[in-house]
Amino acid sequence: MTQPDYDPGPQVAHAGTIDLGTPDLERSLWFFRDLLGMEVVEQVDGVAYLRGYQELVHHSLVLTQQDEARVNSYGFRVKRRQDVELFNKQFEDQGMKTVELSSGQEAGRGEAVRFLVPGSEHPFELYYDIDKPLADESIRSKMPSNSSRRRGLGVRRLDHINLQTSPATVNQAESWLRTELGFRRREFARLPQAPDIMLASWLSVTSQVHDLAIGVSAEGQNAQFHHVAFNVENFHDVLTAADEIRDLDIAYGHGPGKHGIGQAMYLYVHDPGSGHRIELYSGGYHIFDPDWQALEWKLPELEYGQTWYGDVLDVGPGGAFLSTSPSAGLVR
Amino acid sequence: MTQPDYDPGPQVAHAGTIDLGTPDLERSLWFFRDLLGMEVVEQVDGVAYLRGYQELVHHSLVLTQQDEARVNSYGFRVKRRQDVELFNKQFEDQGMKTVELSSGQEAGRGEAVRFLVPGSEHPFELYYDIDKPLADESIRSKMPSNSSRRRGLGVRRLDHINLQTSPATVNQAESWLRTELGFRRREFARLPQAPDIMLASWLSVTSQVHDLAIGVSAEGQNAQFHHVAFNVENFHDVLTAADEIRDLDIAYGHGPGKHGIGQAMYLYVHDPGSGHRIELYSGGYHIFDPDWQALEWKLPELEYGQTWYGDVLDVGPGGAFLSTSPSAGLVR
Amino acid sequence: MTQPDYDPGPQVAHAGTIDLGTPDLERSLWFFRDLLGMEVVEQVDGVAYLRGYQELVHHSLVLTQQDEARVNSYGFRVKRRQDVELFNKQFEDQGMKTVELSSGQEAGRGEAVRFLVPGSEHPFELYYDIDKPLADESIRSKMPSNSSRRRGLGVRRLDHINLQTSPATVNQAESWLRTELGFRRREFARLPQAPDIMLASWLSVTSQVHDLAIGVSAEGQNAQFHHVAFNVENFHDVLTAADEIRDLDIAYGHGPGKHGIGQAMYLYVHDPGSGHRIELYSGGYHIFDPDWQALEWKLPELEYGQTWYGDVLDVGPGGAFLSTSPSAGLVR
Amino acid sequence: MTQPDYDPGPQVAHAGTIDLGTPDLERSLWFFRDLLGMEVVEQVDGVAYLRGYQELVHHSLVLTQQDEARVNSYGFRVKRRQDVELFNKQFEDQGMKTVELSSGQEAGRGEAVRFLVPGSEHPFELYYDIDKPLADESIRSKMPSNSSRRRGLGVRRLDHINLQTSPATVNQAESWLRTELGFRRREFARLPQAPDIMLASWLSVTSQVHDLAIGVSAEGQNAQFHHVAFNVENFHDVLTAADEIRDLDIAYGHGPGKHGIGQAMYLYVHDPGSGHRIELYSGGYHIFDPDWQALEWKLPELEYGQTWYGDVLDVGPGGAFLSTSPSAGLVR
Repeated sequence: MTQPDYDPGPQVAHAGTIDLGTPDLERSLWFFRDLLGMEVVEQVDGVAYLRGYQELVHHSLVLTQQDEARVNSYGFRVKRRQDVELFNKQFEDQGMKTVELSSGQEAGRGEAVRFLVPGSEHPFELYYDIDKPLADESIRSKMPSNSSRRRGLGVRRLDHINLQTSPATVNQAESWLRTELGFRRREFARLPQAPDIMLASWLSVTSQVHDLAIGVSAEGQNAQFHHVAFNVENFHDVLTAADEIRDLDIAYGHGPGKHGIGQAMYLYVHDPGSGHRIELYSGGYHIFDPDWQALEWKLPELEYGQTWYGDVLDVGPGGAFLSTSPSAGLVR
Repeated sequence: MTQPDYDPGPQVAHAGTIDLGTPDLERSLWFFRDLLGMEVVEQVDGVAYLRGYQELVHHSLVLTQQDEARVNSYGFRVKRRQDVELFNKQFEDQGMKTVELSSGQEAGRGEAVRFLVPGSEHPFELYYDIDKPLADESIRSKMPSNSSRRRGLGVRRLDHINLQTSPATVNQAESWLRTELGFRRREFARLPQAPDIMLASWLSVTSQVHDLAIGVSAEGQNAQFHHVAFNVENFHDVLTAADEIRDLDIAYGHGPGKHGIGQAMYLYVHDPGSGHRIELYSGGYHIFDPDWQALEWKLPELEYGQTWYGDVLDVGPGGAFLSTSPSAGLVR
Repeated sequence: MTQPDYDPGPQVAHAGTIDLGTPDLERSLWFFRDLLGMEVVEQVDGVAYLRGYQELVHHSLVLTQQDEARVNSYGFRVKRRQDVELFNKQFEDQGMKTVELSSGQEAGRGEAVRFLVPGSEHPFELYYDIDKPLADESIRSKMPSNSSRRRGLGVRRLDHINLQTSPATVNQAESWLRTELGFRRREFARLPQAPDIMLASWLSVTSQVHDLAIGVSAEGQNAQFHHVAFNVENFHDVLTAADEIRDLDIAYGHGPGKHGIGQAMYLYVHDPGSGHRIELYSGGYHIFDPDWQALEWKLPELEYGQTWYGDVLDVGPGGAFLSTSPSAGLVR
Repeated sequence: MTQPDYDPGPQVAHAGTIDLGTPDLERSLWFFRDLLGMEVVEQVDGVAYLRGYQELVHHSLVLTQQDEARVNSYGFRVKRRQDVELFNKQFEDQGMKTVELSSGQEAGRGEAVRFLVPGSEHPFELYYDIDKPLADESIRSKMPSNSSRRRGLGVRRLDHINLQTSPATVNQAESWLRTELGFRRREFARLPQAPDIMLASWLSVTSQVHDLAIGVSAEGQNAQFHHVAFNVENFHDVLTAADEIRDLDIAYGHGPGKHGIGQAMYLYVHDPGSGHRIELYSGGYHIFDPDWQALEWKLPELEYGQTWYGDVLDVGPGGAFLSTSPSAGLVR
């Protein structure tokens, strides 16, 4: 086949990294490294870079020692090296402010562009180049598709990111993510009391039901972080994690249970160093249909969309499940 | 974002359908419908159309009553309606023979193009349009992403297809699938005794490690079918299937076990109506990296590439795991 | 070893049978046979006798068509044939009324003695002889320790029975069960507001944490039935059951979750024919220590005694989890 | 109930302890403590005492640093304190030699009697008193039925012991264990080529299918140790163990798979410090029937008695699965 003479334009490949600010780096490292079983690939000047055992790239999680438990960045990898620059030009053409990050500014990563999502003001970073270092021999896997051996509670990889913003900005942000970054709406729900407003939208650029979700913040604030999900292999791994975490003196959160939305098992816990909500996530269905029609959830079915079975999420007024962390601005 | 003025060319979306000829349709229906839990969406004139509980489309499996237990077609869905015609033109430009199938010639499907893969001569069909009928109310699911309720051994969807061909044609076919249909090589192994020849190649157009695998036929014949895999939700579902199937008087096959290649659980059984090998398959990793480098397996690691743990596959000379079924020609 | 010249006295071997009255036998049969996968060994005159796939005896569950959804009997098997008569004599010596049931009065069972537990008035029956019929060849297992092949949601055997009675009688009944029938107290909780009264006691004559539990009725009534539990093989089987049952139009109940008390997974559903609560139960620990000290649960730990993880049981005032069914009297 | 005036005689309660000699204690500790997740309760003078997270007693496993990788003792707990002395007298009355072990001679245990099983010459020890120390606060569980939190691969408790002896002595030993120690035969197989000889017998004093198995040694030697099994919670825990252990540089052994005999999942690995075979074991059925008839396995069914599904055990001539370790004599 002769390659057609065209440029498909810049595209996002997948959710790639998250930089969680933590006031207690050592405690956060205990949680992610010793309990969840992630590998610390590099640690320098109060910043640690971690990955799951099935990630070949340098890191998916950055833990930054800092006073405030905010999220410093949400990173998405693009499909080609030139897409970083192409996206940057696209954003500038729209009058958006961007910040260019040089190679190595985030260890292991190449050049990136940073910007705030219009409306929700979440600090996104797009990058392509990222190192693929071998793990230390002491933990290296015999399996070439794994960077290290399965350890701890068995976190394989970053799965998806869940964000919240004010009712006034959620539609704008969700729409922008679709039209400008190419996310497709897979499932969604509208606010029952204000059906013009998106309660939550599950978006993906991959076959996953969501690489990114965005919804309404209970406190009505922009740039909020609800959770980041890490993928484990089977439903049973979620049960094992629940069993072990329940027996520790850390904030348990909610779960285990199975979402109707996405059909995956969930367990929500909190990093005891930072308080950020972390989801351990397994399963779910994949969307390969090219003509997928976004599924809408309405009351009362929305209840089993949230919890098909298992520990019910308290999403009512004041529900602890709705607490969020703030994000950094355009310049960290 | 203004849509750029380009045409990406025709693309394959995913493995979609397989048409298995069976000398004993009733027995095959017992197997796929009553034991595996698939839905018979339509049945007419000795042909039955089935789908898993997570498939919204009309069917992924066709069972055709006929004397010979061959495979009549391997169907792949394309990303856009016009891709059927674009692919057809592309093939004709290369001097390949194709057959145009009209809408409804395979029930529930729109227009398709049929051709033989150059070299291996497997009969492929490309289509875009396919109906999305609701299931009968008696089995309809409350979950909008499921077409029916989970039943039987819990088959969710067609996962992938595994083909074999002669050593003389495997390289040509594998290469053609990549350059002309856009499959990417994800993992592979060369023949130990003839490293110029591909022993097996796991290929995908999705984030799956393989939607399609092609390898060398032990008998050296073209157009051979090794197995079709159906996806179940968790490793434990594979164990349950093994438990129940072992207790039945049908050919058990091999498994359960975990492949190193792809990291999924497997169980190989045989449809008692046709003898075709069927894999029940769960898990595995997904490839979201845009710069994935195909992983090569060599001896002795190839052994745990085949079986990381569990029932070892007998792939040596005369190994029962290597038996295959033939495929139909260009005209069925 | 010369057998010592002594008689250990009558002993209970295990919880054996339960006779559930149901106003809709056909619907109950659909539930236990078609959904849960139990075998109907015999059915005559509106009474059906069922067993799980791992029970060699004639039945563990009796379904009796009758107007009232009460429980007709709770059956326990004794260790020797003569224990039926020895227990009968023991009860009569205490001035209790008993009813002698002749062989075959409950199909497949030999002679039995029926009585009401002092205080709680639950109708118990003790028996020794019970037939061990082969299953029909169409479902017979190759596994000699299974009477039939695993089917449906995989119920293996009756596991335990959970009863309730008034606060005024619970201590008397619990004590009588221990001193007269030889049950040992394994775990227990006292009423927080009246610590002299047993809230619930988990009792066993086997290594199970409980073959029988007795606790306080929320409505303060005697002779109440809370649930009967059927055993499935793994935690994952409970998840699968939850998944399938959630998708049906039957009363879902509570779960899945893991009890701290006993450490088993639970799912509570309701037989749609009778409304009786049925637990699907898996795992738990076994007590082999001969000097086991009963574990007491107090608030606030009692909360995770009820639910270590998963769907929380609503045990507060008016909690749906506390509903019960009545039992029959001395004469059915 | 007035307690009858009788003495039931001495009885064995359960398999309690095993003392594995190891030439490399540090490596054995890494295996049992760091990988399998057992707790080291005490360690003194080259001897370590370990227990699983669900054992309240001082230890079930003793690791003794010594040159030879033999097994020093097989310990069984009796039902009452006086049973130690009663058994001792019973053995002396038969002319057997016994050794009285004083309290504390094995740390944490009270007085014990040591003897060689007639015929097979395995060194057994019977004891009643054993300490129940709390775990260190850093690992103590919130669950009162667990001594520590679940860690590592999740070993809960010692499950059973598997011994081998010469064809000339196996019948004598098996019979003696039943008549003198009260073990009941649950399942068994005869030597196909010499049906008068017991190939293997699965024996229990509890509801387990076996607390102890004894069979024929492939090398024809007495006093051989085949494996000790430790119990994990679910089949899935066996899969996880297989996954992690396959990726380590230790002798993998066999599995995972499901035995027909006992219906449990197995994984056989080898302690890298001593080479002793260790089974990780989950599930199985319990025998509560007081009139259980021992199940006999004959060829060809015996094959799926060994492996119902999964990795087949190589039990043929020279099969690695048949290797054994020796045991110590009457005096260690």
